[in-house]
Amino acid sequence: MSCVTPSWSVAMKKNQLRVNEFGLIERFFRPLAVNNPGSASLQDDCATLSVKKGYQAIYSMDTMVEGIHFFKDDPADLIAKKLLRVNLSDLAASGGHPRGYLLALCLPHGFPLKWLENFSAGLQDDQTKFNVSLVGGDTTSSNGPITLSITAIGEIPKGRVIRRAGAMVGDDIFVSGCIGDAAIALKLFEEIGRAKTLKHYPSLYNRYILPEPRIGLGKLLAGTATACIDISDGLYADLNHICLASKVGAKIEMGAIPLSICATNIIEKNKDYWESVYGGGDDYELLFTANKDQRNVIENFASILNISISKVGCIQSGKGISILDQFGHVVPVRSFGWQHF
Amino acid sequence: MSCVTPSWSVAMKKNQLRVNEFGLIERFFRPLAVNNPGSASLQDDCATLSVKKGYQAIYSMDTMVEGIHFFKDDPADLIAKKLLRVNLSDLAASGGHPRGYLLALCLPHGFPLKWLENFSAGLQDDQTKFNVSLVGGDTTSSNGPITLSITAIGEIPKGRVIRRAGAMVGDDIFVSGCIGDAAIALKLFEEIGRAKTLKHYPSLYNRYILPEPRIGLGKLLAGTATACIDISDGLYADLNHICLASKVGAKIEMGAIPLSICATNIIEKNKDYWESVYGGGDDYELLFTANKDQRNVIENFASILNISISKVGCIQSGKGISILDQFGHVVPVRSFGWQHF
Repeated sequence: MSCVTPSWSVAMKKNQLRVNEFGLIERFFRPLAVNNPGSASLQDDCATLSVKKGYQAIYSMDTMVEGIHFFKDDPADLIAKKLLRVNLSDLAASGGHPRGYLLALCLPHGFPLKWLENFSAGLQDDQTKFNVSLVGGDTTSSNGPITLSITAIGEIPKGRVIRRAGAMVGDDIFVSGCIGDAAIALKLFEEIGRAKTLKHYPSLYNRYILPEPRIGLGKLLAGTATACIDISDGLYADLNHICLASKVGAKIEMGAIPLSICATNIIEKNKDYWESVYGGGDDYELLFTANKDQRNVIENFASILNISISKVGCIQSGKGISILDQFGHVVPVRSFGWQHF
Repeated sequence: MSCVTPSWSVAMKKNQLRVNEFGLIERFFRPLAVNNPGSASLQDDCATLSVKKGYQAIYSMDTMVEGIHFFKDDPADLIAKKLLRVNLSDLAASGGHPRGYLLALCLPHGFPLKWLENFSAGLQDDQTKFNVSLVGGDTTSSNGPITLSITAIGEIPKGRVIRRAGAMVGDDIFVSGCIGDAAIALKLFEEIGRAKTLKHYPSLYNRYILPEPRIGLGKLLAGTATACIDISDGLYADLNHICLASKVGAKIEMGAIPLSICATNIIEKNKDYWESVYGGGDDYELLFTANKDQRNVIENFASILNISISKVGCIQSGKGISILDQFGHVVPVRSFGWQHF
C-alpha cells in the first residue's frame, strides 16, 4: 500500500536496508515466531492464538516513539526489551499471563540493518525470559521517527481480571519494588547529561531502560487485590487513575514510599528530586489496593517472589490524593505525572 | 512515559489540542467503547474479549503513516475508515468474523481537535456498519507524521482459518470485485494531480480511500477456499505470496482480470495503466484459490452476496507466475507490487 514512490527504487548505501519487507520479515522476525504455530511463520494475513479452557484473552497495546519514549542512541536491543516489557507490564497489572504479541515497526528509509539485528536479538532474549513469542505484525516505511507498537496478548482465568475500578474505602495501598529511579534518571539526563548519568548512575539508567514487568506478582494478586495499575505515568497520576475509576480518594505517607539507596542519596543532596518520586513514571512497579485482611497474604506474596512490597497509604472516601510528610502535614504536589498532550 | 519536556507545558493555540491524554480518550474514544464491556470504558491497562465456544481468536495488525499510506489532506473520517477496513480485510482474508479492535494513535503536538472529531466520527460510522467496537489502545504524542495502528480481533470456528499455504496444483484462482482501481487512482495522482483525479475520477478515489472489506465472502470461503489473501500489495505480488507459501506456480489470463468501466476507459487511452492492474495494490479485494469442483459453490457465494467473483487463472506446478495475453503469450511483468523497503 503506498501513495509515494516505492522505496525499493531508492538507492541504498552499504549496510543500510537492502532487503524488502518480506526479506526483512524472513531475516529478523520469522525466527521470533518459529515456536508459535498460530503465527503461521508470519506468512498469513492473520495470527491465531487460543487461550486455555476456562480462561479469557486480555490485550494491551503500547507505542514507543524515537525522541519521545527513547533516545536514538539507546541500544536497539534494550529498546526492543523495553517495548515488550511495558506491554507485559500492562498484562501484569491486570493479573494476566503473557502468551504472545504482535509487532508494528515504522522505520525510516535507509535504515541500518545492524539496528534491526540488535532489535530482534533483544526480543529473542526476552521471549525466552518471559516465555512469549511473536505471532504477527506489520512493517512499514516512514518519513518520520522510528515508531514501534506492540499488542500483547495474555490469558487469565475468566472473571479474574484486576480492574482499576475496584478500590474500596479503607483498603491499603501497596507498591512493589522501589519508586522513582526511572524518573530520577530522566531528570539527571536533563541536568547533568546522558553520558554522566550512565557513568555515575548506571543502576538508575537500567531502571529506566529495562523495567521489570511484575508478572508473577500480578498473577498472585488476581483474586486478592481490589484494584491494580502499573506505574507508567507516575505514582500520583496512576493512583489518581485508580481513585477516579473507583470513585474514592487516597492518602499517601511520603516516608513510606520505598526508595533505592541511589535515589535516597540523590534526594538527600537535592530535595527537588522528590518530585520525580511521586510525579515521574517509567518505573513499571505495580501499585495496588487490597483489603486490610489481606496483609499477611500480601506479605507472603513478597516472600514467595523475593521482592519488596510496601504499604504506602490507604484509600479514603471523597476525592483527591493527599501526600503527608512525617509530621502528617499535606505536601503540595506540583507534578501530576506525565501527560502526552 | 517521557524523555522530553512534557508537552502539556507547551502553549497551545486556539482549536489545537488542549486536552490531555485522558481528556482526549474521554472525549473522542470512550464513546466508541461504551457498548463493549471488555473495554472497561478504556480505563484499564488491558482489554478483554472472549470468543464464542468452539471458536478461536484471530488477529491482524496494520499501520498507516501520513505521507506514505494517506495524504495529509485526505478527510480524517475516511482515513479512520480506511485504517479500520484494511484490518477488517485481513480478518476477511482468513475467513474471520470481526469482533473488536485496539487503536494506537501517534499525533504531533498542537494537533487540531477538529481532525480528531472527524476521525472518531469515521470510526463510529464503521463500527456500526461492521458491528465492531473499540476495546483499547494507546495515544501518544510524536515529533513525526501522524502514525496510526490498529490491531483487529476476530473469531472463527476452530480449525477453519484460511491460510495462504493451502493452494494445490490444478486449483482455480478467483478474485472478488474489480482490480486496479485504487492503484490507477494513485498513478493518476502522480500524473494529473490529486485535485483533477478527485474531480474527474471520484469512483477511483473512493476505491483507494474507502476499500470494502469482503467479510461476508471470507466467512463463506472458510472451508471452501484452499488459500486466500486480500490484495494490498498488488495482484501479482499477493498471488506470489500464496504461491511461495503453497510451493506452487500460477498462470493468470490478462483478459480475465475484471476491470471497472472507468479503469477500462483509462487503459484504452494509455496502456501503461495496465501495470497498475497487476502491479498496484490497495484494492482489498479477495484473491483466493479453490478446487475446480467448487465452481458452482463459488458462483452461489457471488449470488448470495450480490458481488462479482471472477476466475482469473489456475495454480500450476513449479515456480513463478505467468500472465498470458489473449493469444496465450507471456506478458512481461515490470512491477511486482508495492514493497516498503
